[in-house]
Amino acid sequence: MDAEQLKKLLEQVKGGEIDVNEAVEKLRHLPYEELGFACIDHHRQLRRGFAETIFCPGKTTEQIVEIFARMAEKGDNILATRATEQVYEAVVKKIPNARYVKAAKAIVLEQKQLTQTKNAIPIVTAGTADLPVAAEAKVTCEIMGQRTELICDVGVAGLHRLLNHLPKLQNANVIIVVAGMEGALASVVGGLVSCPVIAVPTSVGYGASFEGLSALLTMLNSCAAGVTVVNIDNGFSAGLTATLINKKIEQRNG
Amino acid sequence: MDAEQLKKLLEQVKGGEIDVNEAVEKLRHLPYEELGFACIDHHRQLRRGFAETIFCPGKTTEQIVEIFARMAEKGDNILATRATEQVYEAVVKKIPNARYVKAAKAIVLEQKQLTQTKNAIPIVTAGTADLPVAAEAKVTCEIMGQRTELICDVGVAGLHRLLNHLPKLQNANVIIVVAGMEGALASVVGGLVSCPVIAVPTSVGYGASFEGLSALLTMLNSCAAGVTVVNIDNGFSAGLTATLINKKIEQRNG
Amino acid sequence: MDAEQLKKLLEQVKGGEIDVNEAVEKLRHLPYEELGFACIDHHRQLRRGFAETIFCPGKTTEQIVEIFARMAEKGDNILATRATEQVYEAVVKKIPNARYVKAAKAIVLEQKQLTQTKNAIPIVTAGTADLPVAAEAKVTCEIMGQRTELICDVGVAGLHRLLNHLPKLQNANVIIVVAGMEGALASVVGGLVSCPVIAVPTSVGYGASFEGLSALLTMLNSCAAGVTVVNIDNGFSAGLTATLINKKIEQRNG
Amino acid sequence: MDAEQLKKLLEQVKGGEIDVNEAVEKLRHLPYEELGFACIDHHRQLRRGFAETIFCPGKTTEQIVEIFARMAEKGDNILATRATEQVYEAVVKKIPNARYVKAAKAIVLEQKQLTQTKNAIPIVTAGTADLPVAAEAKVTCEIMGQRTELICDVGVAGLHRLLNHLPKLQNANVIIVVAGMEGALASVVGGLVSCPVIAVPTSVGYGASFEGLSALLTMLNSCAAGVTVVNIDNGFSAGLTATLINKKIEQRNG
Amino acid sequence: MDAEQLKKLLEQVKGGEIDVNEAVEKLRHLPYEELGFACIDHHRQLRRGFAETIFCPGKTTEQIVEIFARMAEKGDNILATRATEQVYEAVVKKIPNARYVKAAKAIVLEQKQLTQTKNAIPIVTAGTADLPVAAEAKVTCEIMGQRTELICDVGVAGLHRLLNHLPKLQNANVIIVVAGMEGALASVVGGLVSCPVIAVPTSVGYGASFEGLSALLTMLNSCAAGVTVVNIDNGFSAGLTATLINKKIEQRNG
Amino acid sequence: MDAEQLKKLLEQVKGGEIDVNEAVEKLRHLPYEELGFACIDHHRQLRRGFAETIFCPGKTTEQIVEIFARMAEKGDNILATRATEQVYEAVVKKIPNARYVKAAKAIVLEQKQLTQTKNAIPIVTAGTADLPVAAEAKVTCEIMGQRTELICDVGVAGLHRLLNHLPKLQNANVIIVVAGMEGALASVVGGLVSCPVIAVPTSVGYGASFEGLSALLTMLNSCAAGVTVVNIDNGFSAGLTATLINKKIEQRNG
Amino acid sequence: MDAEQLKKLLEQVKGGEIDVNEAVEKLRHLPYEELGFACIDHHRQLRRGFAETIFCPGKTTEQIVEIFARMAEKGDNILATRATEQVYEAVVKKIPNARYVKAAKAIVLEQKQLTQTKNAIPIVTAGTADLPVAAEAKVTCEIMGQRTELICDVGVAGLHRLLNHLPKLQNANVIIVVAGMEGALASVVGGLVSCPVIAVPTSVGYGASFEGLSALLTMLNSCAAGVTVVNIDNGFSAGLTATLINKKIEQRNG
Amino acid sequence: MDAEQLKKLLEQVKGGEIDVNEAVEKLRHLPYEELGFACIDHHRQLRRGFAETIFCPGKTTEQIVEIFARMAEKGDNILATRATEQVYEAVVKKIPNARYVKAAKAIVLEQKQLTQTKNAIPIVTAGTADLPVAAEAKVTCEIMGQRTELICDVGVAGLHRLLNHLPKLQNANVIIVVAGMEGALASVVGGLVSCPVIAVPTSVGYGASFEGLSALLTMLNSCAAGVTVVNIDNGFSAGLTATLINKKIEQRNG
Repeated sequence: MDAEQLKKLLEQVKGGEIDVNEAVEKLRHLPYEELGFACIDHHRQLRRGFAETIFCPGKTTEQIVEIFARMAEKGDNILATRATEQVYEAVVKKIPNARYVKAAKAIVLEQKQLTQTKNAIPIVTAGTADLPVAAEAKVTCEIMGQRTELICDVGVAGLHRLLNHLPKLQNANVIIVVAGMEGALASVVGGLVSCPVIAVPTSVGYGASFEGLSALLTMLNSCAAGVTVVNIDNGFSAGLTATLINKKIEQRNG
Repeated sequence: MDAEQLKKLLEQVKGGEIDVNEAVEKLRHLPYEELGFACIDHHRQLRRGFAETIFCPGKTTEQIVEIFARMAEKGDNILATRATEQVYEAVVKKIPNARYVKAAKAIVLEQKQLTQTKNAIPIVTAGTADLPVAAEAKVTCEIMGQRTELICDVGVAGLHRLLNHLPKLQNANVIIVVAGMEGALASVVGGLVSCPVIAVPTSVGYGASFEGLSALLTMLNSCAAGVTVVNIDNGFSAGLTATLINKKIEQRNG
Repeated sequence: MDAEQLKKLLEQVKGGEIDVNEAVEKLRHLPYEELGFACIDHHRQLRRGFAETIFCPGKTTEQIVEIFARMAEKGDNILATRATEQVYEAVVKKIPNARYVKAAKAIVLEQKQLTQTKNAIPIVTAGTADLPVAAEAKVTCEIMGQRTELICDVGVAGLHRLLNHLPKLQNANVIIVVAGMEGALASVVGGLVSCPVIAVPTSVGYGASFEGLSALLTMLNSCAAGVTVVNIDNGFSAGLTATLINKKIEQRNG
Repeated sequence: MDAEQLKKLLEQVKGGEIDVNEAVEKLRHLPYEELGFACIDHHRQLRRGFAETIFCPGKTTEQIVEIFARMAEKGDNILATRATEQVYEAVVKKIPNARYVKAAKAIVLEQKQLTQTKNAIPIVTAGTADLPVAAEAKVTCEIMGQRTELICDVGVAGLHRLLNHLPKLQNANVIIVVAGMEGALASVVGGLVSCPVIAVPTSVGYGASFEGLSALLTMLNSCAAGVTVVNIDNGFSAGLTATLINKKIEQRNG
Repeated sequence: MDAEQLKKLLEQVKGGEIDVNEAVEKLRHLPYEELGFACIDHHRQLRRGFAETIFCPGKTTEQIVEIFARMAEKGDNILATRATEQVYEAVVKKIPNARYVKAAKAIVLEQKQLTQTKNAIPIVTAGTADLPVAAEAKVTCEIMGQRTELICDVGVAGLHRLLNHLPKLQNANVIIVVAGMEGALASVVGGLVSCPVIAVPTSVGYGASFEGLSALLTMLNSCAAGVTVVNIDNGFSAGLTATLINKKIEQRNG
Repeated sequence: MDAEQLKKLLEQVKGGEIDVNEAVEKLRHLPYEELGFACIDHHRQLRRGFAETIFCPGKTTEQIVEIFARMAEKGDNILATRATEQVYEAVVKKIPNARYVKAAKAIVLEQKQLTQTKNAIPIVTAGTADLPVAAEAKVTCEIMGQRTELICDVGVAGLHRLLNHLPKLQNANVIIVVAGMEGALASVVGGLVSCPVIAVPTSVGYGASFEGLSALLTMLNSCAAGVTVVNIDNGFSAGLTATLINKKIEQRNG
Repeated sequence: MDAEQLKKLLEQVKGGEIDVNEAVEKLRHLPYEELGFACIDHHRQLRRGFAETIFCPGKTTEQIVEIFARMAEKGDNILATRATEQVYEAVVKKIPNARYVKAAKAIVLEQKQLTQTKNAIPIVTAGTADLPVAAEAKVTCEIMGQRTELICDVGVAGLHRLLNHLPKLQNANVIIVVAGMEGALASVVGGLVSCPVIAVPTSVGYGASFEGLSALLTMLNSCAAGVTVVNIDNGFSAGLTATLINKKIEQRNG
Repeated sequence: MDAEQLKKLLEQVKGGEIDVNEAVEKLRHLPYEELGFACIDHHRQLRRGFAETIFCPGKTTEQIVEIFARMAEKGDNILATRATEQVYEAVVKKIPNARYVKAAKAIVLEQKQLTQTKNAIPIVTAGTADLPVAAEAKVTCEIMGQRTELICDVGVAGLHRLLNHLPKLQNANVIIVVAGMEGALASVVGGLVSCPVIAVPTSVGYGASFEGLSALLTMLNSCAAGVTVVNIDNGFSAGLTATLINKKIEQRNG
């Protein structure tokens, strides 16, 4: 709750427009909705400018459908990540316009048309096996109005494949790099460009990748400054952060 | 090496302006300087727009002084991080304008005046013990022309201290959050603002902080999207990434 | 075995009321029951004031049914945690009053009516996916006579959802906080109240949550003193400890 | 900020007693004090009922002295933990009544006399080497008005030493157990009493204790419910939590 | 190959009884049998006095049956550990006397009668869920001629259950302690007896037992000397080592 | 791209044989093929002298078939590792000459006949359960023209089994050692021979092998110099590196 | 407290020889001595047959001297491990017969003459750097009356050095193996002998030995059964356990 | 001991040239020398073709000097690694020709002149701080007769610095890559060359490099096959393995 809102409320109190008890209630009831098992934070969309998002693991199908439906009533765009096909089938029965993006295991509902950004966000993967995570980043960017460009399978073992895409990378406002195994791609990209790089370690690899720990540490230790890191396999967080950066640059630029 | 440079070179070859052997040589000799024990990458400054930087640990005092001196000759601004006072004393003998920022253990040399950004980058710390890392972030931002605002000791155990600074945080283009122990501050800040948050875990804490591992994992697992993470105690990387973002927003905006 | 019991026994020996050999036997045979594969410690209930509890994983269905039945004969209340529906079905055939609490994967048998405490124990979760662990804490508290209040999905990414429940939290004798991912909720709650907070890390999260390790470390490193921690996903232990505290306060308060 | 305070403020606004802008300011300026490098949260003492405490590591001597002095001005009791003798010498020059508790590496200042609790909190250690951590717990309890009883060197390798103290343990409201190496003492104590046990793992031990990790995991996995855990070597947190519990029981009981 | 064998061979060479080339061959062909995928070391039984043993995981059913059959031809006793029922069914078709010990997931074939030891080896478990590992230790001891005594579910949370078995424990030559969760039982037993204790950590427990790591570290850090540790869940190794010790004591004693 | 190629291209530009724009394009388009989800690096085969290889995990069956087919068109030998039988069935429908090596879970396609090396590469395993990894190393060596010799189940618990194969080992150019559990075989072999040893840790073992971590650390810490290590279970990498070494020795020797 | 003692006490009570209150006191006061900071367990010597031992780290010099002196008064043999020379100098001032074993960092006091065992315990080290740990094992064995034989620097990289000592190893009742780095020596020895092997991992090694973790895991995963493991660098525990085993064998044998 | 040696010995026995007892003795006394605290394995030099080497940490200065002197008597070249200047000063007093290589912390004694290899081994470092480890690799190669070429500070953040050295790298028989932080250089080099790459992770880096763990995992997970890994900071092992490979190639080639 920011100062302006508080000021206005206090002035209404002062002017007798609203009662003290009522004001206390108002201050306590910012716009979110309690479902018993979940609090839908409708205010977050205003506060952060996101689509509503649902992280599915650990929730029952019934809970996901219920949350999805309540969000849908507000007319917002919705993104549900890590959703199985079974979950999608349950959702689509109630919300027929929901669409399943299989590569990303995501359900999307586009109710509001978004202006597309001018600059595409490059999403670069080291290998084909990193695609599901890249796809999650891509669908996240797109439901928030970002154009994206997928550059796939350009790992450091064949540098010329990457160098071929250099012009696109050097024009970007922000780049997402998705890599498992040793995760070295983030450092190499970081050394070639002048924009921030968001690195997503993936759990792809042989035994000593320890489910993504190897790539995670590699990226955290990147000698190419400008590289920041999100959680293992967390394409969503990378997509969202890239969106925040790209939007701010274009907004101010507009 | 980008396409334009290559094109130009090839055209000179075609036009007979330069010899083939000479061109091969040129392509091999991009602007860096070999000292035997170090390659100073003068090209990086062009490529990424940074000040020249030196990471001191593991280098001998003689090596640091030598690298610093060569960089200084080019007239650039220079930042040497993790420098002891002994190292500074050796540097300042050769480069009298070099300045020591004790709180950050950094040596800075400002030879070029930089236009200051309009927007300050807030650097927020959870506790007083996180100050050295925050100071490294601060000096990094400043040597690259960024204004900064240090908000200190506003950890989550006393939320009202943080909330008091909310307006400043909500106006920022990008925020740096520095926290040790449980590192929860990054998530809380991330939930309150709409700009990207760069989280720096510090090695401050009791035994099970495991030298910063605890704060690192907390930040990587932040449920507040928009939070990305750099290495433990790496104020430099946070400062540099924040600079990249802030600069891009102001540039385009200008 | 405490001093009073020993004294009484020794006096009986002295008075010749019981024989020396008999006394030795008595001292060896405190009230527990051997089933070959398990020792039911009927004495524990007296000693600690708990309902009888069975931790199901690693036991065969036959063993669980047998232990449950023996305990039931004593007329006590019984709680079996981490029980599958298959186990429940086997138990209920022999003990028809046993009830299955699906959300908590627990079997409960209420044979004795317990006086309800006046103060409810708040059980707060960061997200919907933390519900199963919270439900285990809840059923544990309730079978031991505690009233509880479930506050769900109030993670730190939307602080106002939590702040709305502040009055309830500030009136509690003890609070259970259940959180996965970065587990920051425990610190934030701990900073807002003056009673002890029992933190339960959950295994909910992306890769680098490492099955709950992230939340565990966060909570152990909490800068908000008064926060103590139990094992990952161990709702039972949190519930039991909260019960011990709440009971003691109300008892003495009588 | 709780509802009552807010209500009162709003009524003053309504009644015209205070101006709107002034009210906004008030709401922003809860009682803490900014020193630039630290925010002293004078409000915390009210909110949580603690003495003011300073965690020294990572702060410069100057910062500690400054914070200590500002806190002292308010007339509160103060506890500075992990303080070297050098720090103490600097503090005592400015605050002559400050006292150094060498065994605990703590500085204490008692300005207000506290009513002593009736029930002593037993602080039990497995070995002599666990004493410094136990001493930190002890000084923390005492500066907050708790009586304590130190039971030292009663590790599980000689059970009869522990059993001798059983009556004292069984009468306690809450017990602190401090143990390194395998940390088994917490489980054994937990199995013998009916009050909550706060377990403090210490970094005492041979190689595979991994600086306290072994004892930490042992305590988290305690099969004796009612045992909760704090950070490695964190006697302060154990002392504070025990205080919260003991105080609540006696308060209500009073 | 020991000195006596070598001497005899060399004397045969000297005496011309065997040819040099033949002798070289002999020296190379100590008694083992190559199956292509496995080398059956018939010599090991002589060397170490064990029954032949097969560790099943990672071997195909066909391989296990083949190895089992070859060993059986020599008339030895055989133990196959970690065998599924499917594997047993395939084995028993070829070797009808093979017996399946379900609790231990072991196949045993007793072809030679063994003299039973006088002293039983106590195998003590902390909980019922530790039984499968204890059963593996038991079947290992027994196929090697040891009497055993299973003492089950006597974990440290109810010490009197353990103390009741003290006389048996104090008469043993060697004791096996099997415990998961915090694994404290090994230390407590170790403190009460004067014989070596072989501790087996099990993977039983909640999240932060990390699949047995917790119990493993506890046991390695035991303050009760005389406790040595084997791998997590490795009942076989504990059984075999206990056998080696018990046999040596009785042999010499005989 | 090496200097010769660049020189030639530049001379063609100079001589006007090719246009500048065309040259830029050429430099950007080294021989690889984009499939959208994968970049097949046909150049790698030239550059490194390998067969084309596909790492199957994380790729869909459709992707694997498509990549396999494109590679097959070029007439090269192909190796697909970690392929299930289902994947093989899909591949063989389109490429009938593809063969499945079940023990290694590999698909191979031999389109070019390779000269066989003179020296066989010994592939030594500690146990039968290490065979699948050894088989992957074997198939990798063979598809690249190496002869191999599998020496199986010669772990350090029965040294004479290993010593019997000493002559073969001492004649090798390079040896692959595959071992799980404690992985000690690599050190023992390394101490007996004068050629490099490539050690492959496997995930075979009881609990504290931590999925191969134990064997990995053992091998990295080998006191027998000349031992280098690849990833856990990575028979492919060991096979390929051994091939590189053996080939170079024979080539120059030829 | 065993059954016989209890019986006798109870009979005294019955016969009126001692008073009930007195008996309760007796039961509580088993022979140990409280120093405030330490409980000297004089009973342990009877119970376990050890010399009195003091683990010095974490104790102040004053505490060590005090404990040593009290133990010395009883006339027992004493062993203080991990003692610095400074500590020794303080001890020897008060107990002039105390002797410092520098290689083991141990202080010993021999007041009672012990019968020497017939069989020596071999203590085998992989390298020279493992000597301090082996020396601790040696001094422990000797103060408890065991003869020992040190076999030094026979690591697996030069097997013939070890094989030369085979006869001594094959005649032993129990063997101690001390090894850092990859710790493979324990497995190799274990495979060659028929007695139990006590393995002591040491913290000797390069980076990825992780302070002994590598050797610890190797030894726990030993494929040579009969190998049990103690804590990293814990020569004391190995010496004591070997003593327990050797003594039992000789006792019964005597 | 290989078959030929054995054959010859046996024939001498047969021919009566040597006595049986004498032969047994011979077989037991392969050429090594016992110093009590160390076994100098003079045979290793024959067996593996190395210079004698001493790993100094954990050995006393006296022990190092003694071992060095004994080795020197045989006339071999000697390398002592991780030697402090103090150790060197003690050595040089006894062996005046010993030389200290400060950058590598190594002592070398060259008594035999070695033929230099034709091909130099490139030793590539990512940064200046990796130099000490590279220097250890260098001195190791050189004392074994290898020419080397140091290529310093060419980390992936400035790819053109590396690419400039491509011709040298592509002509090598084997390459050593030394890198800390994220260790990505090994993968990038591995992707550009057709010879084996030996990767040495270093402990250089910020907090989450965890003393070299990050670089170690990166290198183990390298997607560029042909990369094998040695222990953290183990320049010696890398140098020795590279020597083994280079020597074999040149030998056969000669």
